[in-house]
Order: sequence, then structure tokens, then C-alpha cells
Amino acid sequence: MEKLGVALVGHAFMGAVHSHAWRTVGHVFDLPVAPDMAVLCGRREDAAEAAAARLGWRESSADWKSVLRRDDVHVVDICTPGDSHSEIAIAALKAGKHVLCEKPLANSVAEAAAMAAEAERAAAAGIGSMVAFNYRRVPALALARELIERGRLGRVRHVRAAYLQDWLVDPEAPLTWRLQAERAGSGALGDLGAHLVDLTQFLLDDEITGVSAVLETFVPQRPLESEPRSTGAVTVDDATLFTARFAGGAVATFEATRYAAGRKNGLRIEVNGSEGSIAFDFESMNELQFHDGTDTAESSGFRRVLATEPGHPYLQAWYPPGHVLGYDHTFTHEIRDFVVAVASGSPPRPGFSDGLRVQRVLDAVQRSAARESRWTAVEGGES
Amino acid sequence: MEKLGVALVGHAFMGAVHSHAWRTVGHVFDLPVAPDMAVLCGRREDAAEAAAARLGWRESSADWKSVLRRDDVHVVDICTPGDSHSEIAIAALKAGKHVLCEKPLANSVAEAAAMAAEAERAAAAGIGSMVAFNYRRVPALALARELIERGRLGRVRHVRAAYLQDWLVDPEAPLTWRLQAERAGSGALGDLGAHLVDLTQFLLDDEITGVSAVLETFVPQRPLESEPRSTGAVTVDDATLFTARFAGGAVATFEATRYAAGRKNGLRIEVNGSEGSIAFDFESMNELQFHDGTDTAESSGFRRVLATEPGHPYLQAWYPPGHVLGYDHTFTHEIRDFVVAVASGSPPRPGFSDGLRVQRVLDAVQRSAARESRWTAVEGGES
Amino acid sequence: MEKLGVALVGHAFMGAVHSHAWRTVGHVFDLPVAPDMAVLCGRREDAAEAAAARLGWRESSADWKSVLRRDDVHVVDICTPGDSHSEIAIAALKAGKHVLCEKPLANSVAEAAAMAAEAERAAAAGIGSMVAFNYRRVPALALARELIERGRLGRVRHVRAAYLQDWLVDPEAPLTWRLQAERAGSGALGDLGAHLVDLTQFLLDDEITGVSAVLETFVPQRPLESEPRSTGAVTVDDATLFTARFAGGAVATFEATRYAAGRKNGLRIEVNGSEGSIAFDFESMNELQFHDGTDTAESSGFRRVLATEPGHPYLQAWYPPGHVLGYDHTFTHEIRDFVVAVASGSPPRPGFSDGLRVQRVLDAVQRSAARESRWTAVEGGES
Amino acid sequence: MEKLGVALVGHAFMGAVHSHAWRTVGHVFDLPVAPDMAVLCGRREDAAEAAAARLGWRESSADWKSVLRRDDVHVVDICTPGDSHSEIAIAALKAGKHVLCEKPLANSVAEAAAMAAEAERAAAAGIGSMVAFNYRRVPALALARELIERGRLGRVRHVRAAYLQDWLVDPEAPLTWRLQAERAGSGALGDLGAHLVDLTQFLLDDEITGVSAVLETFVPQRPLESEPRSTGAVTVDDATLFTARFAGGAVATFEATRYAAGRKNGLRIEVNGSEGSIAFDFESMNELQFHDGTDTAESSGFRRVLATEPGHPYLQAWYPPGHVLGYDHTFTHEIRDFVVAVASGSPPRPGFSDGLRVQRVLDAVQRSAARESRWTAVEGGES
Repeated sequence: MEKLGVALVGHAFMGAVHSHAWRTVGHVFDLPVAPDMAVLCGRREDAAEAAAARLGWRESSADWKSVLRRDDVHVVDICTPGDSHSEIAIAALKAGKHVLCEKPLANSVAEAAAMAAEAERAAAAGIGSMVAFNYRRVPALALARELIERGRLGRVRHVRAAYLQDWLVDPEAPLTWRLQAERAGSGALGDLGAHLVDLTQFLLDDEITGVSAVLETFVPQRPLESEPRSTGAVTVDDATLFTARFAGGAVATFEATRYAAGRKNGLRIEVNGSEGSIAFDFESMNELQFHDGTDTAESSGFRRVLATEPGHPYLQAWYPPGHVLGYDHTFTHEIRDFVVAVASGSPPRPGFSDGLRVQRVLDAVQRSAARESRWTAVEGGES
Repeated sequence: MEKLGVALVGHAFMGAVHSHAWRTVGHVFDLPVAPDMAVLCGRREDAAEAAAARLGWRESSADWKSVLRRDDVHVVDICTPGDSHSEIAIAALKAGKHVLCEKPLANSVAEAAAMAAEAERAAAAGIGSMVAFNYRRVPALALARELIERGRLGRVRHVRAAYLQDWLVDPEAPLTWRLQAERAGSGALGDLGAHLVDLTQFLLDDEITGVSAVLETFVPQRPLESEPRSTGAVTVDDATLFTARFAGGAVATFEATRYAAGRKNGLRIEVNGSEGSIAFDFESMNELQFHDGTDTAESSGFRRVLATEPGHPYLQAWYPPGHVLGYDHTFTHEIRDFVVAVASGSPPRPGFSDGLRVQRVLDAVQRSAARESRWTAVEGGES
Repeated sequence: MEKLGVALVGHAFMGAVHSHAWRTVGHVFDLPVAPDMAVLCGRREDAAEAAAARLGWRESSADWKSVLRRDDVHVVDICTPGDSHSEIAIAALKAGKHVLCEKPLANSVAEAAAMAAEAERAAAAGIGSMVAFNYRRVPALALARELIERGRLGRVRHVRAAYLQDWLVDPEAPLTWRLQAERAGSGALGDLGAHLVDLTQFLLDDEITGVSAVLETFVPQRPLESEPRSTGAVTVDDATLFTARFAGGAVATFEATRYAAGRKNGLRIEVNGSEGSIAFDFESMNELQFHDGTDTAESSGFRRVLATEPGHPYLQAWYPPGHVLGYDHTFTHEIRDFVVAVASGSPPRPGFSDGLRVQRVLDAVQRSAARESRWTAVEGGES
Repeated sequence: MEKLGVALVGHAFMGAVHSHAWRTVGHVFDLPVAPDMAVLCGRREDAAEAAAARLGWRESSADWKSVLRRDDVHVVDICTPGDSHSEIAIAALKAGKHVLCEKPLANSVAEAAAMAAEAERAAAAGIGSMVAFNYRRVPALALARELIERGRLGRVRHVRAAYLQDWLVDPEAPLTWRLQAERAGSGALGDLGAHLVDLTQFLLDDEITGVSAVLETFVPQRPLESEPRSTGAVTVDDATLFTARFAGGAVATFEATRYAAGRKNGLRIEVNGSEGSIAFDFESMNELQFHDGTDTAESSGFRRVLATEPGHPYLQAWYPPGHVLGYDHTFTHEIRDFVVAVASGSPPRPGFSDGLRVQRVLDAVQRSAARESRWTAVEGGES
């Protein structure tokens, strides 16, 4: 079987999770090509080398640019902070490499637009690009999408989406790069809210057209990582709340925060339609709550669908019913879909244009918050 | 024991529930006076008479004004639609009767302000008035208030409140008075949202200072009740969504709808603070989810507190632990508190001024929605 | 409307709950006769008088035998401990009174058999008798019975039933009458297990034919109520566990205990059949979990049916969907059914023969436990 | 780093899951040696070769006996049906290989005893052996063990354990090897019940001393796999129910079945002690319900502990809080513990003697069921 050479850039949390997925995917799914974990790139040589050994990469490099020139590398997987995405991705695409890029796609609409433009050019040459919104590959959510697509919810009226974490509850937690606008772009908005925006647009197969938003920074100064007795300014949002409208007529509430004490990874989505509803919470990621409005009233209620049946998305490759999956399986699914797409020459989804679409919503959120929450249209939207 | 004569106005859903509470309260709680279910008032004589017999009232009347002149009536309990609240309540107060009034207090800020002014005058003469936000008397929510008051949540950061019902999902459901602005004032906003506003202000002991809102009417025309083949215009909101800020610094999302397929009476509130969180859903009304942030991380998690212990609010009068209460018990609690307050001459809570405060928030919501969701200050608020 | 005079014997916990139901039933349900709360009987005159005033009875008496001679008393409702049930019930039936008797029917099979025999004689004269297994009247469980009756579960394979409380966890809790065999008959077995036996036989419309049992007393000595520094022997079971078979082929596990720390009133029943399953926990009494095996695998799962729809048993008389009921509503339902039955001359269910059937199962449990858990047939069973 | 050569025997469901764990463990945990996936053994050469390629083994073999002679193989991992465990394990131990053996350890006490004896001999020579009860390595259950060990539950009173699946609900499901006594040893008892027995003994660090049991085969004839129009006899139990006592005084109910419609992998355990309780259901494997009896009554309740904190067992190696794990992670943990133990020369747990102990309980269950459920002591137990 032909090999698909992969270079991964970045080896922190996301790099480790992607590595696990690259190591696993070919042993679980039938793939048209064989992923080859060629090289791991990092900023510092020694750290990259140690990470490569630990995470299962053949080689390491401190110079991603040189890696782009290698013939045995066909894919570049970008797991760095958001401020370097556009440079690496555009260079990789220009070098004829397929690109998988962590979310959010970029730190600004301008960067994202440039990336999407480059991706479009590359696509004409058969080069694929994808943004790593892994939650689309939670089987329960992929199932939700199928149910909505088949009309089981009827006309969608309501979306309520919240992504709740609590790791900033302590005001003494340090000022990491995730709290600095120049590195992270934004705070809860880009880190958590971006997932919500992509997921809800995916589930409904629809676009957000406008928003009214509030941003809040509860703790404006935090201890520096390097020098804990000094503090620095938090320059991103601690929490983001917004209402939104979809082109298809649904109204929505969104909320992203790292101050929801006791909620660890509470990505929650509920969608209500004229014929039924779905509800999901990532903390119980194998479960989809599904209300079928066509059930007889007397025996109707939200069904706790355990999304582990052979007929559920991605499950054919795994275990018998009830043998639940975890967070890292979503990346294995994502990479499986990416590999299948690039091997067949069809565009992987979500593409950079989807990432741009998300970025434009985040941008509208920030603009609305800056002008007294006034209703703000998403640029480039359908309507 | 001295008697407390009661006149009830209205005998539809709310009238029946209040009647159950008046019949029950004296047999369960130790009261300083004995409620006497003197007279039930309705618009039509025959209907009122039949209802009085069924619901346990000694007499009936089609003329509430004459009832106000009776010496054996000390309390007027108003269970009519919102458009008649202010007339009845003001007349009753002027006649020296204590008043318990269903929510929302009125259909406009002007009416509510007039009522609150009259209530304040009456209070000087020892006359009590109260607005019937019964959900304050859910033991689990009264417990939540106690926990917050005692500082168990620390500084409150987030409120998320939703009241989800689904009885309008069917576009063929008829155009009742609840869908007509001139009778009901507003739609989901006043019917459901009013509860959320009062409850969250009560739980936090804080005030909403501003909002940014969206109103939506999904089904603008519905069949007439009298003539189902014709349709009439729905003149209220089907759904209301808004973000808000509290004086104390918390940010909030609110949502009220009757289009959440499969949700029957899903009044849900979650509050996150710097030290802990609470979460509640009326569909499981005996449960309070409580996260104590001071628990050791390894054995911490949301506790499902079954609010049926003898030490929980109102429970001393009822059953052993685990013998759960229902919807109507909240009214028995409400009337217990009302009776105790008026008998002792202390002002019952929530008073008409609390009702006015809620009305002002609803008004700000409508004004914000009318001007592109712009941030809108609540009138008369603290800040 | 004709009056139905009622005498209640006993005014502790059960007496208070029955009183609430008698006070309420005629105001909520359409009844063919009007219950008249004539007289409350107790052992001590002053206590009975005070209780009558508090609970809403016209008169009181310390001599239940004389009450049986009153013409204005048509019903005797027995809420005393189990050791007096048979004397009162038999005397009342001989006096031509309808009898409602708290569970368990008696403290021994012999007593229960005598009561059932008397009830059968009385039935020939149109006199009704009923044992107060109130949990049959939980709407969610009445719905479960309907679903099973209609074949929605197919052939029943499994029953697992547990009744979990925790009020004896503390070894210093005093030695009340419930821990003395001569007053209570048995411990967790008769108090809690009796409910499980009746309910499962009711749900399946089937009979338990044999059992294998273990009884356990964890804390054999407890402080005396009267003299806390002395202790007395606990002469009943703290916990009962048994396996069982039903005539129709189902196998079952049963467990009753007051030592399940954190479980307050955890009456839990799960039934699995060839076509579906139901599961229930009284701590969430408005919910029935229902798995319909005929749903498509991909969208199937246990449905959380909120048993508050107008089409659910008893709900027509109450509130809109989602406005949940509590423990005391089950007694109102029970008394509604009792009144309707005796007024129409049809035998109320469960009758004393059902109570006897339960008693025989409890007896088989005790006999099995006494002979090394050997399989023990239930006397008088179908097979 | 030194290599630890591994031979895996069997490549069906369990073989695939173990392979995933062997591939993953060294990349996630810091190990003292480097696992080397040397050879995969199967009965048929071509199938083994294909499986080796798919699952990541360097070589394949149809002759496990010859593999035992290889110097580069240090570990034999047995994933075959139970009837071949003893032969392979004993041979491997005699050849000086560490052995990891799937559960149940054997199909009879005699086989298990021979294996345990051989394991004891091998242990003297520094050879480790372990039985693969993977559920001990669910973080939530490992946490439960810690809590019980630290006395957080006080004195244990109750255990209720059930393992509920539903893949035999359909009477037309074929007669696989799992339904044949000569291959599988027993049915639900050995397949599912064995897990419950091991887990509860592990959690309590205690031994089951006696049982009273019922076995049931609901569908005695099923279609042959090879010839679906003919049927063959089911020679194992479809369901097993038993009560049990632990040496430490706890009483227990156990149930294992494949007929619980709608339950997919419902391994449920609840333990109640004098100071607290825990409850678990594998379908929500990341959650431990924990009741701390020392909490104030007013704010106490079962805590939903999401066992994904860095301080929880095994979690240090994985993801941030709330990023849940799945079924296969339990095998990675198991193999991590196995590798660490054999590398350090300390005996891995659970050892073959633990497996034997489980086998003796299963045997007592079968003997009790064969003699009218009479109480039956577990052989070789402490008491």
C-alpha cells in the first residue's frame, strides 16, 4: 500500500493527541494509503527529538520550513498556537502538501481569508486542507447531524450551545499564552466558542447570519508564569455570551467560559425543531438525547441513545455496543476522514472555507461586543 | 384562632391551584390565623358557583367589587389574566385588603408602577401585598438561595436561565388569550421569562441592570379558537432570548420559549461562582445539583441534593426524606409565607416592588429587541 | 350528592397522609359520592382530638369499636401499626363498613388469611376492602403496568427490585416499634419489601412462585427510646435479599434495606422483556424510563417519559404537562379509586386477597432464610 | 531501553483490543522497558498473518508452541476462548514467559487451580502472571477502591452488582461458541458474572464466602451458525442471579444476563457503607457517584465525580479534566501495570490466585443452583 508521509508541527497537548490518532488510525480503519509518521517539528531541537521518540515519529526537526521540501512528506499537520497557523499552512499548501490545521483556523479574519484563498488554489491541484474541529467526529454528534439531515427534527427553531470549563476559576491561575491576545487571538471565544460555532453550523447545515454579543474579563490581572510575584494583563475574554440567528430561521444562545465551577469539559448543545429535539453534553460523550416528536405522547420522552451501535458513525471499526469511546477517538475519526479524502482527491470537510466562516462569526461577535451589543451581521454570509 | 377571610378572583388553572393551597395550608403548617375560604369570584355567576362548590369555597360571586366591601374578607387573591390585575389589586388595597397577585404583576411598567405605589401606601397601614412567584418556594431553589446567601458559591460569575415548554410546537394550536398582546401583555417573555427574571434576582439577591434581547414569533398566524377555519395574528413573542448583567458583576443568558419540543416545564437555572455552582431543572423539582468548590478535587463533583430533608426549607411540615413534593406544594408554601407575613404585619416577599422590578426588566428586553438588540439599561435599577 | 362517612384509625405519619388525601380527593376528581371526614380515632383522647382538629376531621374518638356502630360511618381507614390491623379490619367488615387498610396487611399469614376470608364474605354483601399499596398509584408505575399489559415489553424475562433507605445507618438510632418483631412483624421485609412484592406482581400481573432468601440484622442492639443509655434487641431484619421466580417465567432479584447510605426513598424497579424494558426510581417519581425494542437501533434508547401528560393515569385531574406530582398525590389517587369502587359496588384493588398473596411471599422469604436459603415455594400460589 | 518481547495468542475481539493497548502504552506512560510486539499467534496461518499486519505485530505464527521457544519473546498474552487458557498458560510459564491471560481464568476450578499452582512456582523464579480483569483499571473504579481503602465508606454493608447486556434478546440469534459449555465453560456467569465477582472482591478488598444461586436458560434451542435452519442446544446459562456474603460482613446481590433489553454494557456496582456509598455504571464509565455520609445533611447528595482529574488513577498520563476516556483505555492501563510489575519483579495483580478465587465463587454458584439454591460455601475461602 502506498505511503502517506506526515509531518506534525507542535508537540504540546494537541500534538500528543494527533500523534495518538496517527499511530492508531491505520490499525482500526481500512485506509487506502498507509500513514507514515515521518517527522515531528518543534521550536527547540532537543525537545522535538524527545517528543518524537515518545510520540512515535521517525525523525524530528526544529525547522519546519526545510521539512516542506521533503518528498516523503505529503501531509503537514499543524498543532501550534493560532498565531503561526497562517504562515505554516500557506507555506505548506504552496509546497504542495495536504494540510490539517488545528482550530481556530487563525487569529483574525484576514489571516483566515488568506488561508482559505490559498486552500482554494491548492484544491485545484488536488491538494486537500482541513481544519481540525474534532467534535464533528464525536459519534453522538455525527448521529445528531444525520438525524437533522433526514428531517427527524423538522424545522429547527432553537439552538442553545454552551462550552463550560472551570480552569480559570482560581484568580491565582497564571497568565499563560491562552490569556494573551497576541498569541491566542481571543480567549474563551476562540478556544471554546469556535467549536460551538462550527458544530452548530455543521449540525444544522446552516449559517449564522448575525449576532449580539457580550464579552467579559472577570480577572483582569494574573500572575506571570515566569515571575509569579508580578502580574500581567489578561488581554482576552474570560467569557463570551451571544445570541444569534441562522439563515434558516433558528434563533440561538451561545456561551463560552472557563469560569463555570465544576464543569470540566461541558460542551453542551441542544437543538429543538418542529418535529423533535436533540441534546448533548461532551462530559457524557457517548450519549445523544433524542426526542422524537412523532412518538405517541403517552410513551414519548427524550431517548438516551448510546451511540455505540454498529450502525452509528465510525462505530463499525470499534467495539460491541456499550463499549464506550473517549476523547481521543474523535481525532482518530478525524484523521481517518482526512486520509480518505486526500487519498481520493475529494475535499476534506471542514475545509478552510468552513474555518473562515467560523472566524467571521467570531469577528462579528467581537464587533458587536465593541458597539453595545448591537446586532451585527456576519460578513460574507448567505444573507 | 382568628379567621383570615379570603376572596379568590379567577378559577381557571391558577385559581384551582391556589384553592388547593388554601385548603391545605392550615392542615400542614402551624399558622397564626385560620384561613377561611370565603368567596370565589368569577365573571359568570353560574361558572363561579360551580367552581366554588368544586374547589371548596363557601360562596361565589360575579361581582368582585362588592366582595371588597365585605368585612369577613381580609385577603384578595388575584388569579385572572394580566390585563385585570392592576384594577383589582389597586381597588382591593384601597379597600384595606391584603393582596396576593399572580405573576406577571401587570401588562406594563406603568400599571405595575401604579400597583407598587398603592402597595407602598397600603403597607404603611399594615396591609400586605405579594406577587405570586411560586417558584421561589420550590424547596430546592429556596435551598439554593440559602447556599448563595451563605457564600457557598463565592462571587457569582455566571447565570444561565431557560424556561422551556413545547405546547406551541404544533402550528395548528389555536390562538388563545395567551397569544394576544392586549390580554397577555407579552408571550413567552411575560409568561415564562418573568419567572426566570424574578428567580435569578432572588437567588443572587441582586438586580439585573441591562439587557440585550431578541424576540421571535415563529408562527405569525394561528387558527381562531371560536372559528378554527379562520386565522388571527399572534401578537406576542413565541420566544425570547437575552443576555444580561447583574449589578454584582455576573453575566447571564436568558431564554424563554414554548417551542422546545419534548421539554414540558423545563425551568432550568445554573449559577456558577468562584467557590461553587448550583443547577436546577423544575422537571426534577426535588433535586438541587450543588458543586462545592472546596471539596478535594479527587472526590468532588456536582451533588444531587434531594431537597427533602427535615432541615430543608418547608420540609419540616411534610414527609420523611425522599418522599418527594410536587408542583402544588410550592403554592402551599407561598400561601403559608403570605399568611404568616400578613398576620404578623411584616411585608410579604416578593412584594409589588419586586414585581415592578421584574416588569422593568421585561420592558428593557422589549425595548432592546426593538432597537437592534442594543444594550438597554433597566429603568430604576441600582446602577 | 350522597355522603360517604369516613372514620380514620391512627394519626401518625400515615394517618396524616391519608387525611390529606381525603381532604383533597373530592376537589380534584369527580366522585360519585362525597367523602365526609367524620371521625378520627386514636388511642389517647386528647391526642386524637388535637389531631382531628389539625387534620380536618369533624370529630375524634378514643374508642374505635364504638365508632363502628355509627350509621354515618361507611368507611374505616386503618393507619395503625400492623399488629392491630386484623382485629380492626375484621370487626369493621363484620359491622358492614368498607375497609381501607395500610400495608402490610398483617403481621402473619394466619392473620392475613382470616382478614381475606372475612373480606370475601363481606364482598358478597357489597362491602369493599382494599390494602393501601399506594405505589400502584404513582402515575409512572400505573403507566408501566399499562405498557406491560399491552405487550410493549413482550415476554418478561427479568425483574430487579430494590427499596433503599438509609435511616438506620447510624447505629445509635433508637429502637422504635418498627424494629420490634411483635409490633412490626418484620423489618425491612414487611415495611419495604412488601411494597416491592406487591408492585412487581401488579406490574407483571403475575405471581411469585418461589424464593431463596437471606435476612440480615447488622446492628443487633440499639438504644431504647425511653431510656437511651440502655439498649434492647433488634428483633427484625435490617435488610432482606432474595431471588424469586414468577409463574410466567421471569426471574427476579429483590432487596430491601434501611442501610443504603445516601438513598432516601429509593424504590427502584426494572423489568426487561423480549420487546422492551421499563425502569423506575421513586426518588424521581414522575419519570418512567422506557425502552421500546422495536425502535430502530440507531435512534433507540431508554426514553425518559415524564408521566405528566393528560393521557397518563390520573393526570387528567391535575396540571399541564411537566407540572410534577409528589408523594401525597399517590394517596389521593388511591382513595379516589377506593371511593369509586365502593360507590359502584365493584371490588377495589388491591383487595385483601392481594395483601394475603404478598404476605405469603414474605412468609416464604422468612422460611427460606431460616433453612439455608433453600428454594421455598410460596403457599397457595398458582404453581 | 531494554525490550520486552510480546507474543499474543488470539486475534478476535480481545486480541484486537490488547493489540491497541500494546501499541499505545509506551507512548503514553513512562515504562521501564520497551514493549516489542513480536509475534501474533492464531490457529490459521493466513488469518494470523493478515491480523498481524492489521494489528501491528512484526510476525505471525500458527504454532504458539514454537513461539514459546523464542528468546525474543518474554511475555505471552492469551486472548483465546477459555478452553485453551490452561494449556497455553502453563506451557508459557514453564517456558519462563510472563503471562497475561484473559478472563475467566479457566473453564473449571481444576484448571484454574493448576494454573495458579504453576504461577506460584513461576513467581519464585521471577515470572509474573496476571488475569485480565480490565475493569479494575477503569479510573472511576480504581478511585472507588481508593475511597473504600481509605475508609470513606466506613464499614461496608451492601453490595449490589449487575452486568446487563441484551444481545441474546432475539431468540433467533445464532448458537455461537459462547453458548456452548464445552467451549465457554458457562454463559453469562463466566462471561459477565466473573467480572462482577472480581470487581467487588477488589473494591472491598474482601472475599465472598458463600452464595445462593439461580441459573436460567430462557431460550434452550438456537439456530446453528453453520446451518441456520437447524437448531442446537444452548448448554450454558442465559442469566445468573445470586445472593452472597463477604467475609467482612457485607451482603450482596449479583446478576448477570444478556437479556436486559436496552442495556448494552451495563456493568453496575453500588456499595453502601456506614459512612458513605459509591455507585457506578460502565455505560457512563468516566463517572463515579460518591455519597459522603459526613457531609452536612442539608447539602449532601451523591456527587457525580468525573474521574478525569490529574489526581485520579491513570489520568496523569492522559488529557485535561473532562476529556473522557473509553473502553480501550482500561486495557492500556492494565498492560501498563503488567509491564511495570514484571519489569520490577513484583507480582502483577490480579494474579492467577485471584483468578482462581473468582473461579471458586463461580463454582459455588453452579453448585448452589444445582441443589435448590441452598447456601453454598466458596471452597478455599477465608471462612
